[in-house]
Amino acid sequence: MSTNIPSFSGSFTLPGEAGFEQLTLQLAKKWGADTIRDSDGTQLSPEITQSGYSIYSTICLVRSVQPWARKNPHKLQQNFLMSRPVVAAKPSVTISLLDGYYTEQFVVNVKDSPKQWWQVFDRTTGGEVPKAKWSVDPKKGAVIITGATPGHRYTVNFLAFRIWEEISMYNHLTNNWGDREHLSAVDPMHPETQKALLAYLDGWLRDHADTRVVRFTSMFYNLTWFWGADHKRLRDVYTDWADYEMTVSPRALKLFEKKYGYKLTSEDFVNGGLYNSTHNAPTRRYRDYMAFMHDFVIEFGRKCVDLVHKHKKLAYVFYDDNWIGVEPSSPRFHEFGFDGLIKCVFNAFEVRLCAHSRGVSTKELRLHPYLFPTGLKGEPTFQKNGGGNPTLDAKNFWIDARRGIVRAPIDRIGLGGYLSLVEPWPDFQDYIEKVANEFRLLKSFHKGDKPHVAPFKVAVLTAWGDLRAWTCSGHFMANVELYHVLEALSGLPLDVQFISLDDIAQNGVPRGVKAIINCGRAGTAWSGGAHWADPRVETAITEYVQRGGGLIGIAEPSALPQAGQNFRLARVLGLDRDNGERVANGRYKYDLSPKHFITEELADVTLDFGPKEIDNIYVFDGDTHVHAERPGEASPRLATHAFGKGRAVYMSGFKFTYENTRLLHRALFWAAAHEAKWGVWHSENLNTEATYFPKRKKLVVINNAGTPQATRITLANGRTAKTVNLEAHGIAILDM
Amino acid sequence: MSTNIPSFSGSFTLPGEAGFEQLTLQLAKKWGADTIRDSDGTQLSPEITQSGYSIYSTICLVRSVQPWARKNPHKLQQNFLMSRPVVAAKPSVTISLLDGYYTEQFVVNVKDSPKQWWQVFDRTTGGEVPKAKWSVDPKKGAVIITGATPGHRYTVNFLAFRIWEEISMYNHLTNNWGDREHLSAVDPMHPETQKALLAYLDGWLRDHADTRVVRFTSMFYNLTWFWGADHKRLRDVYTDWADYEMTVSPRALKLFEKKYGYKLTSEDFVNGGLYNSTHNAPTRRYRDYMAFMHDFVIEFGRKCVDLVHKHKKLAYVFYDDNWIGVEPSSPRFHEFGFDGLIKCVFNAFEVRLCAHSRGVSTKELRLHPYLFPTGLKGEPTFQKNGGGNPTLDAKNFWIDARRGIVRAPIDRIGLGGYLSLVEPWPDFQDYIEKVANEFRLLKSFHKGDKPHVAPFKVAVLTAWGDLRAWTCSGHFMANVELYHVLEALSGLPLDVQFISLDDIAQNGVPRGVKAIINCGRAGTAWSGGAHWADPRVETAITEYVQRGGGLIGIAEPSALPQAGQNFRLARVLGLDRDNGERVANGRYKYDLSPKHFITEELADVTLDFGPKEIDNIYVFDGDTHVHAERPGEASPRLATHAFGKGRAVYMSGFKFTYENTRLLHRALFWAAAHEAKWGVWHSENLNTEATYFPKRKKLVVINNAGTPQATRITLANGRTAKTVNLEAHGIAILDM
Repeated sequence: MSTNIPSFSGSFTLPGEAGFEQLTLQLAKKWGADTIRDSDGTQLSPEITQSGYSIYSTICLVRSVQPWARKNPHKLQQNFLMSRPVVAAKPSVTISLLDGYYTEQFVVNVKDSPKQWWQVFDRTTGGEVPKAKWSVDPKKGAVIITGATPGHRYTVNFLAFRIWEEISMYNHLTNNWGDREHLSAVDPMHPETQKALLAYLDGWLRDHADTRVVRFTSMFYNLTWFWGADHKRLRDVYTDWADYEMTVSPRALKLFEKKYGYKLTSEDFVNGGLYNSTHNAPTRRYRDYMAFMHDFVIEFGRKCVDLVHKHKKLAYVFYDDNWIGVEPSSPRFHEFGFDGLIKCVFNAFEVRLCAHSRGVSTKELRLHPYLFPTGLKGEPTFQKNGGGNPTLDAKNFWIDARRGIVRAPIDRIGLGGYLSLVEPWPDFQDYIEKVANEFRLLKSFHKGDKPHVAPFKVAVLTAWGDLRAWTCSGHFMANVELYHVLEALSGLPLDVQFISLDDIAQNGVPRGVKAIINCGRAGTAWSGGAHWADPRVETAITEYVQRGGGLIGIAEPSALPQAGQNFRLARVLGLDRDNGERVANGRYKYDLSPKHFITEELADVTLDFGPKEIDNIYVFDGDTHVHAERPGEASPRLATHAFGKGRAVYMSGFKFTYENTRLLHRALFWAAAHEAKWGVWHSENLNTEATYFPKRKKLVVINNAGTPQATRITLANGRTAKTVNLEAHGIAILDM
Repeated sequence: MSTNIPSFSGSFTLPGEAGFEQLTLQLAKKWGADTIRDSDGTQLSPEITQSGYSIYSTICLVRSVQPWARKNPHKLQQNFLMSRPVVAAKPSVTISLLDGYYTEQFVVNVKDSPKQWWQVFDRTTGGEVPKAKWSVDPKKGAVIITGATPGHRYTVNFLAFRIWEEISMYNHLTNNWGDREHLSAVDPMHPETQKALLAYLDGWLRDHADTRVVRFTSMFYNLTWFWGADHKRLRDVYTDWADYEMTVSPRALKLFEKKYGYKLTSEDFVNGGLYNSTHNAPTRRYRDYMAFMHDFVIEFGRKCVDLVHKHKKLAYVFYDDNWIGVEPSSPRFHEFGFDGLIKCVFNAFEVRLCAHSRGVSTKELRLHPYLFPTGLKGEPTFQKNGGGNPTLDAKNFWIDARRGIVRAPIDRIGLGGYLSLVEPWPDFQDYIEKVANEFRLLKSFHKGDKPHVAPFKVAVLTAWGDLRAWTCSGHFMANVELYHVLEALSGLPLDVQFISLDDIAQNGVPRGVKAIINCGRAGTAWSGGAHWADPRVETAITEYVQRGGGLIGIAEPSALPQAGQNFRLARVLGLDRDNGERVANGRYKYDLSPKHFITEELADVTLDFGPKEIDNIYVFDGDTHVHAERPGEASPRLATHAFGKGRAVYMSGFKFTYENTRLLHRALFWAAAHEAKWGVWHSENLNTEATYFPKRKKLVVINNAGTPQATRITLANGRTAKTVNLEAHGIAILDM
């Protein structure tokens, strides 16, 4: 069954391109665009800007004032770095600070007193080296330690200015821009910088009379990206999508101390070279610093937005790149006064991430493929002779994004890049027209309606909670299980919320939640790491399950080693992990349990949970039912356990596949003790998904596969069924 | 080439059997026995004991006084147990203490004041429950906690008497002995018990006039073996070959406090249910307790031995079963005054373990197969209709043991069990004759000579050091890497010593050591666990390598997490493990290095390091050379790193194979910077090994394979070679 999608226009942003005015206007019409934008590397001609379309213009403020930056090198952005560890061979040790780092990105900051801000550590003892025992050689960019103990490891935490803004650096080096100027980012933490930026913005707004929407890329501070000297062997020494490392400065630290009443040290940022990766459970001190910086970004960001509004334009913000401190999932995000939020999406969870933000009236997605010769994942997208197939790429990206769009309201979509590239690809032009129409139809269903969801709430429990809802730290990383879980959840008919261990400690399990997912490796922010040290968390979740709640533990849920126990919730899960300390402890020999509600739709129980599943899981007794185990090893991969009036499910890993998505969906229903409600508005074929809009009485069925699919849909009572045929990547809309 | 082994007699202990006197005396002659023994289940008739052979008789003292034991149930041995964790649902919690334990082994000890000795823990908070908040119900064998917090986990540490001695229990249950008496073990910690035991021993010595050697099995306390209620699902709740758990009693704890000036608690023994497994790094408090108990066992053991000597008999001790506190590797072992030590051996490292002991004049091996219908590993050894092949079994056991015997002096060998079983197996009778003659020849070479070894010393570094030399904790366990390493080392021409991290902290690396092996999983006693917290250990080993020493790290060497580093010796090894906290940290992209001295003899570098190798290893830079990596994952399996004037080798696992034994041998030479000395008295064929006795000028070549082998032997200069042909399992002796 194929559905005729009505063709209507609007809600679409087209990247225009000067020199291709005819194509721009022709495709704007074909794709139903209401807005034309510029992109990195393209400009709009007056013929376009004055064609009656709404005009978007991009601006990256911190990179915008290069002459001022050159005159104020000590007001560039900076950060703490840890030197490479050096093992002392003699009492005198010289440490070259930038050894291993990319010196076109970093310059040691010797201007702000090193003795005040830096720290030298003896990592063998863990102690700080007294300031009297080290000195700086500014010319050599080195620290000399005297009285070192031979055989000990030493590191220096030091401040470095960043003289090349990372996005500019990346584009420059990727595209071989030769001697084109290296743009650097100024630090708005200084009042003088703020003044220069506001003056620039004011002038820019005057110069862009035709612009209706100012798109900030993004605000002031980049996600963290420390480059190495050897771009072939170790380009990314450290990189994290949500880490505040690159916001730091002596001024910020002083203001922090004034506000919070205590002093942060370099080691709060360096953390032995681990920095404050979002993947690791955050400390209280770092969370305080984030709050401080969020505050600052809101404060100065609001001034910029106000100026845009003063010029009668709208202010949108890009949810990537220089987005640190913006925090669109924060309850304070609305204070910026932004009119729109734009998210570039590869996956369904990024759609949900964008939709999740509160405090803007417009949420827009930048779809892939970008109109670049080569896709961001290296595909030869628009290369005729390179095997490019932009239409197929677009279909595959669309079915991923669509799973999220059908579940959560999005206001606009759009593309970016060089429009001229699509000229030789008429089928691509046709497919984008189809996508635009499909999007507009789905958007219309969300208006005044909400898709049907399961009659219980699902909570994803991490150390971050809602602040990092619908992502871990940026784009999909295959080796982090929670991304896979989020991608699965993004398209499921569930009411999902994100809670932190702190939330649980303070307020208990939120009302209505019947299934909690805790998924991740020991020590990570996703499993919860040290946040499990608060016994209130274990207590609250244990009691919640005792009283009938459901728990899904994946990989190393609630992991925090105690003597004899590794998972805090081991007794709830009915199993634990042996981290190697139980060589002398016997393991209960279980039998594999027969089929279960959870595994009913699996062809067999040869689960694919990815290449790095957790091993050495053992059950306590026969109350834990093991449904799948590791080949050749009695270590459960899938187990269920009744606990009190509640239920727990354990999975030793997770990988986003349609089969595992169904498995997770069923596990949630079983954990929530809602098996009886299974199958309402449900599409049985694993490659397809159904969404019911109850007020509009529309049933949307999507085909997530690249081949035609037939499926049975069970309706409101969970039994009566309809059969639907879908073309490859197709969609069907049924009036119910 | 096959060598004619001369036939001479002596140094052989034969198990005699009443009713088979002719066979006994005939085989005693054939095998060159000088001694006849009884075994569990067999007796010797006067015809045997008075035949002119030396007579061994076995005695297990603590099991010997059953009538006294029945009259003194509160002087049976006891131990702490941890109850199963119970999660509170209400403020009142009842914990059935022996739930899950085998109640024919354990009886709760309510006689010694529970409030004084027991502890109740809230494992959720980690705190002890005040004594006022719990009470004991002796009838129900339960503890009732009041004022518990719902959702918290509670456990009780309690004392339990053991009413069935474990070896007796095992034999009884394995052989279905029905209603035969359950023997229990009395605790010699009580002076009254000592009196009863000495009186019994005195009578027994009088009754055994023909006995020349009293073989103790062993002294007083069994290795730890806690049985579960469900023998099918979880028979061994906890078992450890070298753990002192089963020595504890209120009296011992009081005496300890008096002597050491501080009090041990139940949790020092229970440790959250992990007890004090030898596989885990020991605490200072537990080491103190071991020293205390060793002291006691020596003190009372000496009295028993003196009594034996008073009766003009010799006292041998069995190195297994009730051996706790005996500690044949202890420098104090000689204080017992034993005349002999008997070790049952499956493997070469057990031969070395026996040979390693100081303080007895005679070291004897009990070889496998035991003369039982079924072998200890389940083989149908002497079952004609069950596919038994005792001769092949004997060959395979012999080639394993022989690797150790050729390297270290052993005084005697012998068999155990039912001699009558060998009657229908003439080829077995012939093969044992051959083994006995081979053994006597090898023994003669050791007399006044020492096998040639590499010109540098090798040290195995663990938390235990020499006290657990040549074993981890008992027989081979496949999942503990160090056993595999020990089995490899046992047959290599190396001077191996065992040092502890404490030894290093206090005295540095011993003189002459040029290669240190640290092998094990994080947290284990073998890797070192918390003992690495002392920075002196890292410092000493780092300096030792800086100055030219060699380090072999296997699995998770020196593992003790610090911020940003997991292996304490990471900088020496040139690599570290990512335990999951480095998602945001980049990894240096290495190239696989070409062949190396270490891998020269490998057919390829598809190493077999066992099924549980360590993953997520990363190198710091190009100074680390990676020779093998995990399939599909850039995680080094074999790497070399020059550090200062020294060298380090990393292996991600180890499995005892002849190929890996060669790899380890070469790795040691390379680490010690002695490649130039490689190949002295060296047999090139991986299945064979050569040992040179320099004073006797004998070169012994053994074939460790079940097929004929040819090999080139390089001689003293490492170049000149001889070719030797060996039959399956064979040996060749060359006069040089």
